[in-house]
Amino acid sequence: MAQVLADRREMEFVLHEQFEVSRLSEHQEFSEFNRKTMDMIMAEVRTLAIKEILPTLKIGDQTGCRYEGGKVTVPPEFKRAWNQLIRGGWFAPCQNPEWGGQGMPHALHVMAQNYLIGANMALLMVAGLNQGAGRIIEQFGSDEQKKLYLENIYTGQWSGTMALTESECGSNLGDLSTSAVKNEDGTFSLTGNKIFISGGDQDMTENIIHLVLARIVGAPEGSRGISLFVVPKFHVNADGSVGERNDMVCTGIEEKMGLHGSPTCSMALGGRGKCIGTLVGEENKGLSMMFLMMNEARLMVGAQALSCASSAYLYALDYARQRIQGPPLSGKDRASVAIINHPDVRRMLLTMKCHTEGMRSLLCYIAFLEDQKKTSKDSREKERYQNLIEILTPVGKGYVTDRAVDVCNLAVQVFGGYGYTSEFPVEQLLRDVRITTIYEGTNGIQAMDLLGRKLAMKNMGLFLDLINEIKTTLAEAQMIHSLSALSGKVETAVNTLCQVAEKMDESVRGEAVLRAYAFANPFLEATGDVIMAWMLLWRAAIAEKKLEKGVEGKEADFYEGQLNSAEFFISGFLPVTMGKMASIMDLCSAAINISDASFGGK
Amino acid sequence: MAQVLADRREMEFVLHEQFEVSRLSEHQEFSEFNRKTMDMIMAEVRTLAIKEILPTLKIGDQTGCRYEGGKVTVPPEFKRAWNQLIRGGWFAPCQNPEWGGQGMPHALHVMAQNYLIGANMALLMVAGLNQGAGRIIEQFGSDEQKKLYLENIYTGQWSGTMALTESECGSNLGDLSTSAVKNEDGTFSLTGNKIFISGGDQDMTENIIHLVLARIVGAPEGSRGISLFVVPKFHVNADGSVGERNDMVCTGIEEKMGLHGSPTCSMALGGRGKCIGTLVGEENKGLSMMFLMMNEARLMVGAQALSCASSAYLYALDYARQRIQGPPLSGKDRASVAIINHPDVRRMLLTMKCHTEGMRSLLCYIAFLEDQKKTSKDSREKERYQNLIEILTPVGKGYVTDRAVDVCNLAVQVFGGYGYTSEFPVEQLLRDVRITTIYEGTNGIQAMDLLGRKLAMKNMGLFLDLINEIKTTLAEAQMIHSLSALSGKVETAVNTLCQVAEKMDESVRGEAVLRAYAFANPFLEATGDVIMAWMLLWRAAIAEKKLEKGVEGKEADFYEGQLNSAEFFISGFLPVTMGKMASIMDLCSAAINISDASFGGK
Repeated sequence: MAQVLADRREMEFVLHEQFEVSRLSEHQEFSEFNRKTMDMIMAEVRTLAIKEILPTLKIGDQTGCRYEGGKVTVPPEFKRAWNQLIRGGWFAPCQNPEWGGQGMPHALHVMAQNYLIGANMALLMVAGLNQGAGRIIEQFGSDEQKKLYLENIYTGQWSGTMALTESECGSNLGDLSTSAVKNEDGTFSLTGNKIFISGGDQDMTENIIHLVLARIVGAPEGSRGISLFVVPKFHVNADGSVGERNDMVCTGIEEKMGLHGSPTCSMALGGRGKCIGTLVGEENKGLSMMFLMMNEARLMVGAQALSCASSAYLYALDYARQRIQGPPLSGKDRASVAIINHPDVRRMLLTMKCHTEGMRSLLCYIAFLEDQKKTSKDSREKERYQNLIEILTPVGKGYVTDRAVDVCNLAVQVFGGYGYTSEFPVEQLLRDVRITTIYEGTNGIQAMDLLGRKLAMKNMGLFLDLINEIKTTLAEAQMIHSLSALSGKVETAVNTLCQVAEKMDESVRGEAVLRAYAFANPFLEATGDVIMAWMLLWRAAIAEKKLEKGVEGKEADFYEGQLNSAEFFISGFLPVTMGKMASIMDLCSAAINISDASFGGK
Repeated sequence: MAQVLADRREMEFVLHEQFEVSRLSEHQEFSEFNRKTMDMIMAEVRTLAIKEILPTLKIGDQTGCRYEGGKVTVPPEFKRAWNQLIRGGWFAPCQNPEWGGQGMPHALHVMAQNYLIGANMALLMVAGLNQGAGRIIEQFGSDEQKKLYLENIYTGQWSGTMALTESECGSNLGDLSTSAVKNEDGTFSLTGNKIFISGGDQDMTENIIHLVLARIVGAPEGSRGISLFVVPKFHVNADGSVGERNDMVCTGIEEKMGLHGSPTCSMALGGRGKCIGTLVGEENKGLSMMFLMMNEARLMVGAQALSCASSAYLYALDYARQRIQGPPLSGKDRASVAIINHPDVRRMLLTMKCHTEGMRSLLCYIAFLEDQKKTSKDSREKERYQNLIEILTPVGKGYVTDRAVDVCNLAVQVFGGYGYTSEFPVEQLLRDVRITTIYEGTNGIQAMDLLGRKLAMKNMGLFLDLINEIKTTLAEAQMIHSLSALSGKVETAVNTLCQVAEKMDESVRGEAVLRAYAFANPFLEATGDVIMAWMLLWRAAIAEKKLEKGVEGKEADFYEGQLNSAEFFISGFLPVTMGKMASIMDLCSAAINISDASFGGK
C-alpha cells in the first residue's frame, strides 16, 4: 500500500544514517532515547497520525470552525484527536518531564512532527502553541505561574496562545497599543484588541492560557516599552481548579484561504473592564522574551511547511503511479501508460522529492544542533551550535516555506484537473501551506533577518561557521570518485555564495543599503539553494558508501534514489542558483529608484 | 482613487504606442475601428467591468453554484451581469456581425477582456465559451445548424460549452469512450459521461448548446475516430423556438479550490437513451476541428491569467500605499511608513509590475498578429503571422499562466496576514488563477507542444521567425544610447536561447528524446523569459524616445516606469534565465534514469 505523510525509510535515513541522532543517548540528558526507543516512538507517532489525526483533515477544511454567541467551536472530531495527542504526550515532547514534558530530542520531535502535522496542520497548529507558551512560563514565569498553568499546558489539558498582533501592528510589534494598568494586588488590568490569534478560542480544552503583549501605562514608546502577561480564559484558583471567566473574549474569526480547522481569532481584552493578567518576568522585557522563543516558533513553521510538502509529494507520487493517460513518448507502443512514465511528470516528481528531502534534512539538522548544544560541555562548541542555529533559522523558515508552497503547487499540477478539486487532498494542502510564508515573520522579514542581522553578526562569524560545515561535507564527498563532478559544482556554488555574502554584507552597511535590501529575498533564496545542495550531497555521499559496500533490492533502490536526487538538484537547479547569484552581484537599483507614481495604478 | 483591474494609461500604451492597433482601421475589415472608436469601447468596457461585473466577484466565490434536483443554479447576481454582457455585445466581439458578432480586432478584444475577466473570471469563463462554440458552428456547421444556434450563441441569449473530457481521458482525448449511433433521420444518439464541463448547466440562459466529442460506433480507435456533435440542452424547433428537453443532463458539480462561480459539471448523455445530437462537419474529424479552435482557447486562458495578475498587482499596490508598518530601513526617522517604501515590498511590486506588463504586451501582440493575418493580402506574410502565432501560443498559455500564479502569490504576500483572509480579494484571485495552468492543455502539454511540435516545424522556421522579430526590436533599442547595456544583455540571452533551441531540437529527435522532454518545461520557461525581456525592451525603447522628446508630470512618470520595468527584468531576472539555459544544456538524466522504486512511497 502507498505510504502517506512521509516515507518511512527516508525518515530512518535522516535520523539514523545522516545524523545518527541516537548518539545523543550517550549523554545523560537523553539517556532514555536510544535507537530502539526512537524507532518505537516513530512507529507509534506514525500510527497515531495515520489512524487518528489524518481522518480529521478534510473535516477540518470543510466543516471548519464556527463562531457563534461569543464562542468558537471546532469540528467535534478534533476533540477526540486532541485527546489522542494528550495520551501520546505530544504537547510538550521536548520539555521538562518535571512539568509534564517528555524530554525528547528536538531532532526526533521534528521528524515526529512531520507525521502529525502532515496529517492535519490546522489541528496541530493549535496544539503546537502549547510548547512555546509553556516554555515562556517555565523560563520566565514566577513559581506561582508555573504552579498554576505549566503542567496543564505541557500535557495538553489546557491550550496556550500567543496574542501579539493588532490590526495596525503586525510585522512591527513595537507599535502595539494594548495597554496594562497595575492593580493594587500586583495583577494588571488589560485593555485592547488583538487579531490573528491562532486558537484564541476553541472548545477542545477546559481552559486557554493566553500570553499577551501589552504596554504598561507610562512605559517607553516603541519596542522598549512592551511587557508580557499571562491572561487565562478562566481564572485558576489556588487549588488548580478552574474559576471565573476572565474578560478576554473572542469577537470573531477570520474567513481565510485555508487552515479552516484552526480558528484565527479577534480578541477583545477588557471590554467589560475586567481583563486581569499577571506579568511574566520583568516589565518592558516582553519583546525580548518573545524573541527568545522566536527561533523555535519559526522552525515549527518550517516543519509545518515541510509536512505539507511531504504529504503532497507522496499523494502526487501515488496518483502518478495509478493514473493511466497517454502513450509513452518514445518507442512504438501506443497504449496509454501510468503518467509516472512521462518525462514532465518525472521532472515534477523528482523536483518535489529532492526539495522535500533536502528540507527534511535541513530541519532535522537544525533541531539536532539544538540537542547537541544542550549536551555539549564545551562553551565554544555550544557557541558554534548556536551560531549555526541562528543563521539557519531564516532559511529553515523562509526558504523552506517558499519551496514547500512550490512543492504543493506541483502536486496539484501532477493531479491535473483532479488536483483542483476537493476529491484529492492536494488543493487543501496548497491552501493550508500558503500561510507558512506569512506568519511568524513574513518571509520578507526572514530575508531581512538573514541579511541585516545574522550575516553581519560576529564579523560574519555565523556565516563562516556555516561555510565550514558545508566544506566538511564537501571534503568527504570529494573523496568519493563517483561524486567528484557533483562536488565540484557544489564547491563552485559555495565559493560564489561567499563572494555574494561579502558583497551583500558590505552593501548593507554602506550607501547601497536599500539596493541590498531589495535583494535580501534573492540572497535568502540563493543561500537556501546552496544549503539544499549541501544536504543532498551529504545524503548522496552516505548512499554511495552503502552502495559500494553492496546492498540489494529495496535498499539499493532507496540509496540510488538519493543519488538521483542529488544529481537532479545539483545539475538541474544549481545552475539556476548561479544565475540568481549573478543577478544579486549586479544589485540592480530599479526597485529602489522607481518613483511611487511610476508604479501606476493612480 | 486607486485604479482596479488594469491601469488605464498602461492599456493605452500597449494598444496605441506599442502596437498602434488602430492602424487596422485602414483595412476594410476593421474600418470602423479607428482610434476614437477603440477608446470609446475601452472606456465603456471598463465601466461595465467595474460597475456591473466586479460587484459579483466575491458573491461568486462565497455563494458559488448549487446543484440540486438535476439542475445548477448560479448566484442570482450573475444573471444581471450576464444580461449586461449581452447588452454590450461581449459574447462574440470578434465574430462575424452577420451572425451577431461585433467584428472587433482581437487585439482590442484581448485588452477589453483584461477588464472583464479581471472583474470576475468565473462568470467570464462561462460566458467566454460562446465565442469558440459559435466559431466551430460558423466554420464547420451546416446551414441548418447555423440557422438554429449561431446568432443566439453569439449574442449570449444562449450559452455554449465544450464537452470533451471524460474521467479516464483528460490530456489524451484519443481514448474517449462516449459513443454515437446514427439514427434513420440523420441525427445521432449519444451515450456516455463527460466530466469537468465548464458551464455544463446553469440557469442564466434559456438554452445551452453543447459541442460534444464522441466516437461513432464502428469508427477507428484513437484520435482518428472521433467526431463532433451539437447537442442542445433543449431541442430547437424549426422556427427557432425552444422545444423539448434533450437527454444530456448534469449529474453533479465539482467542489474545487477556486472559480466557485463557474459550475464544473459532470454530464450524463443518453441516460434515458434519448440524447440526440447532430454531426458537425465530417465524421471522424472531430479532434482536428477542435484543434483549430485550440490556439484561441489557449490564448483565452492566457488572458484569464493575465487578468487575475493585473488585478492582483493593483490591489497589492494600493494596499502597499496605504498600509503603514515599520520605520524606513535607512535614515534616522523611526516613524512607521507606508510599506511601499520598504525595499522588499518594492521588489515584490516591481516583479509583479514588469511581469504583468510583459504578459499584457505578449498577449496583445499575438492577438494583433491574428488581426494582421486577416488584413494581409500577401500569402507569405500571412504565413509568417501564423508561424508566430503558432510558436507563441504555448508561451501565451503555459508561461503566462505560470507567471500569473506567481504574481497572484506575491500579491497575497504583500498583504501579509490580511492577504490570507477573505477580507481582500487577492486570496480568491490566487485560487481562481490556479486552474489556468491546468485546463485547455496542462502546462506540461504546452511545453511538449513547444518542444515536440512547434520548434521542429518547417525546419525550425517558426522559431527563426520569432528570433527575427526579436532582433528587429533589438536593432531599434541598440540605437538608443541609454538602452545599449540592456540591449546587450537581451542579445546575449537571445543568442543563448538559439543555441539551446538547436540542442533541444536535435535531442528531441535522437536518443536523448526523453531527457529532452524532461526539460521541456524549463525550455518553455527560458523561452518565455526571453520573450518577456523582448517585450519590456520594446516598451522601454518607445518610452525612452518619448522621454527624449520631453514629456512631463504623469506622462514622464509613466514612461520612466517603463524603463524601471525593463531594467529590473533584464538585470534582475535575465541572469537567472541564463542559469536556466545552462541547466538545460546539461540535460541531466536523473529524472529519466530514476527507477520507479527509487521515488519511494511504497
